[in-house]
Amino acid sequence: MSRIVTFTTDFGTADGYVGEIKGVVLTHAPDATIVDVTHDIPPQDVDYARLTVSRFWRRFPPGTVHLVVVDPGVGSPRAALAVASDDRFLVGPDNGVLSAALLIPNARAVTLRVPDDASATFHGRDVFAPAAAALARGEQITALGSPADTPITYRTPEPVARDGGVIEGEVIAIDRFGNAITNLSAEQAGVVMVGHRSMRVRRTYADVAVGEALAVVGSGGAIEISIRNDSAAKAFHLSRGDKVILRADS
Amino acid sequence: MSRIVTFTTDFGTADGYVGEIKGVVLTHAPDATIVDVTHDIPPQDVDYARLTVSRFWRRFPPGTVHLVVVDPGVGSPRAALAVASDDRFLVGPDNGVLSAALLIPNARAVTLRVPDDASATFHGRDVFAPAAAALARGEQITALGSPADTPITYRTPEPVARDGGVIEGEVIAIDRFGNAITNLSAEQAGVVMVGHRSMRVRRTYADVAVGEALAVVGSGGAIEISIRNDSAAKAFHLSRGDKVILRADS
Amino acid sequence: MSRIVTFTTDFGTADGYVGEIKGVVLTHAPDATIVDVTHDIPPQDVDYARLTVSRFWRRFPPGTVHLVVVDPGVGSPRAALAVASDDRFLVGPDNGVLSAALLIPNARAVTLRVPDDASATFHGRDVFAPAAAALARGEQITALGSPADTPITYRTPEPVARDGGVIEGEVIAIDRFGNAITNLSAEQAGVVMVGHRSMRVRRTYADVAVGEALAVVGSGGAIEISIRNDSAAKAFHLSRGDKVILRADS
Repeated sequence: MSRIVTFTTDFGTADGYVGEIKGVVLTHAPDATIVDVTHDIPPQDVDYARLTVSRFWRRFPPGTVHLVVVDPGVGSPRAALAVASDDRFLVGPDNGVLSAALLIPNARAVTLRVPDDASATFHGRDVFAPAAAALARGEQITALGSPADTPITYRTPEPVARDGGVIEGEVIAIDRFGNAITNLSAEQAGVVMVGHRSMRVRRTYADVAVGEALAVVGSGGAIEISIRNDSAAKAFHLSRGDKVILRADS
Repeated sequence: MSRIVTFTTDFGTADGYVGEIKGVVLTHAPDATIVDVTHDIPPQDVDYARLTVSRFWRRFPPGTVHLVVVDPGVGSPRAALAVASDDRFLVGPDNGVLSAALLIPNARAVTLRVPDDASATFHGRDVFAPAAAALARGEQITALGSPADTPITYRTPEPVARDGGVIEGEVIAIDRFGNAITNLSAEQAGVVMVGHRSMRVRRTYADVAVGEALAVVGSGGAIEISIRNDSAAKAFHLSRGDKVILRADS
Repeated sequence: MSRIVTFTTDFGTADGYVGEIKGVVLTHAPDATIVDVTHDIPPQDVDYARLTVSRFWRRFPPGTVHLVVVDPGVGSPRAALAVASDDRFLVGPDNGVLSAALLIPNARAVTLRVPDDASATFHGRDVFAPAAAALARGEQITALGSPADTPITYRTPEPVARDGGVIEGEVIAIDRFGNAITNLSAEQAGVVMVGHRSMRVRRTYADVAVGEALAVVGSGGAIEISIRNDSAAKAFHLSRGDKVILRADS
């Protein structure tokens, strides 16, 4: 039994905390294959991490263990979780960061035991890493703790129908390229409005000239506001929570 | 058959796009060994990525697959390529980013098929990752598409001989340490001039005092303008394209 | 024989230097498992790297090879080292960066041979990587060079007892979260003072309200000055070397 263990944290790498966690995983599961997803989640940004996890977790093969440590509540009474969902495993704090997997039917979660000698400020190393290693070795998730009945889950807010047949959504993330990802989906052609601007929904960036704005159905299926080869977020001062209107073509 | 797949992208890691690509590669090639080169190429900077690839691609063992996704033209008619060159493989867009391998004699390239359901904005996940995985599994490159006859290649500009026996080159990259890497090479001792400054070509940084400027033949064989333990690019306001003069000792 | 090789550098990744090193390691030790610790050590910050290495090096399994390249003196007469300590191996420059391992009883060090054709500016690729690969293949450390009798070591400064029963320490690192890590340890309850501020030593962040300052025994055993879910270093303008006073409860 040799499994993939992916890493998603807000630790950065320079301080060596991630090095500690990797060492613990490899000490307890020498055959595990470590795959970095990211250590650049903005510090303590649980919602950002929740969206990131939702993008990649089911792209990995069955049996993969996803270690997710974005944990502003470390040392508080928040629970530590292991989750089995759609044949993958996830380990992380009970703060909503694992929502994507928990909201799938038949997801199971257990509350991890916290060893007496665990650091009160670094459960990534002392609680989550040993649990991820145990799952990577093929241990049963039920052996790691007791059933967690009501883990915390968050959902991306739903768009709302407004007068005049328009749909109001919002920006839920800004990616590295300055694309503003919304909670809107486009079943039909239409126009997206944000502030005083409006732009047609296009198939891809290359449908407009370089430097021109567009709306596009992104790779996750949601409408994004973009500028070809530039940052829409910077040019239009967009940030998470900004309202966005979708009007379908009549 | 188990091969190394290296990753070079401009995606950053926080958004989870790289996680998606890694998941796809490991799903289609479970025995592949994933090695990160970088995800920090400046967004859509094809020329930067071209130079980075030129540095490392032949340092890896024969059989290695290099996945290179810096792709401002995604969704446009630009082709998607797989390249076999000097016993390594490369996969990426046909925008010049793979030039180092394409310019080698006997390089072969194929134009990848784009699946009908591929996202028009994320070929890294839906086109390049499956192709890299196929090569990692040992599939023949010819099975991945049709021959690409005239892939796009760029060359680093050549220095030019000027009056008075001097050679005029330019800065082609600034590295993390603030070294300005030029397109000049030094077969003999000499002096490098940039703006109003001039400095002798030395063997290594330690040949001058800390904080002092020097020219040095860098690890890639080109002359670099450096300051020992400081950033020459910052101190001298150097950037890509700046003219640099080399005068050999008479 | 297949061993883990970890990477700790100040190279960043975008320039491809780390790609070159990884390629060399995998060429010379095809079965090695590469694990990234960090490439984000601040450029040429030997002391930062020394602390980072001290955190993680013994968390990895016996036999692990730690490649540490933070090397402002490259090309100077500074020696290149391989170290065997507590059943792990470390490879890097003789500038104090490997102190944590060198200061352990029974540590052995050898001075690596520098090949004639090694770049004078990139020993990471041409000296340290081949040595790490040799150790990963199971070669004896004594085969790599001659005994190094007096490698350079640095110790974190010790706190000092002052009048009035207080202990004076200092900030030795600022981590990504803005925690100021000191050289103080807390055997008993007490109060920490920095500048005009004072705060009680708590068990964990969650013992105070969000936005409130505290002192806490961090995961490495040292007292840290923190703000719950915010950056103490930014709020209090803390940096390395700042004096910190600990007064135990009477």
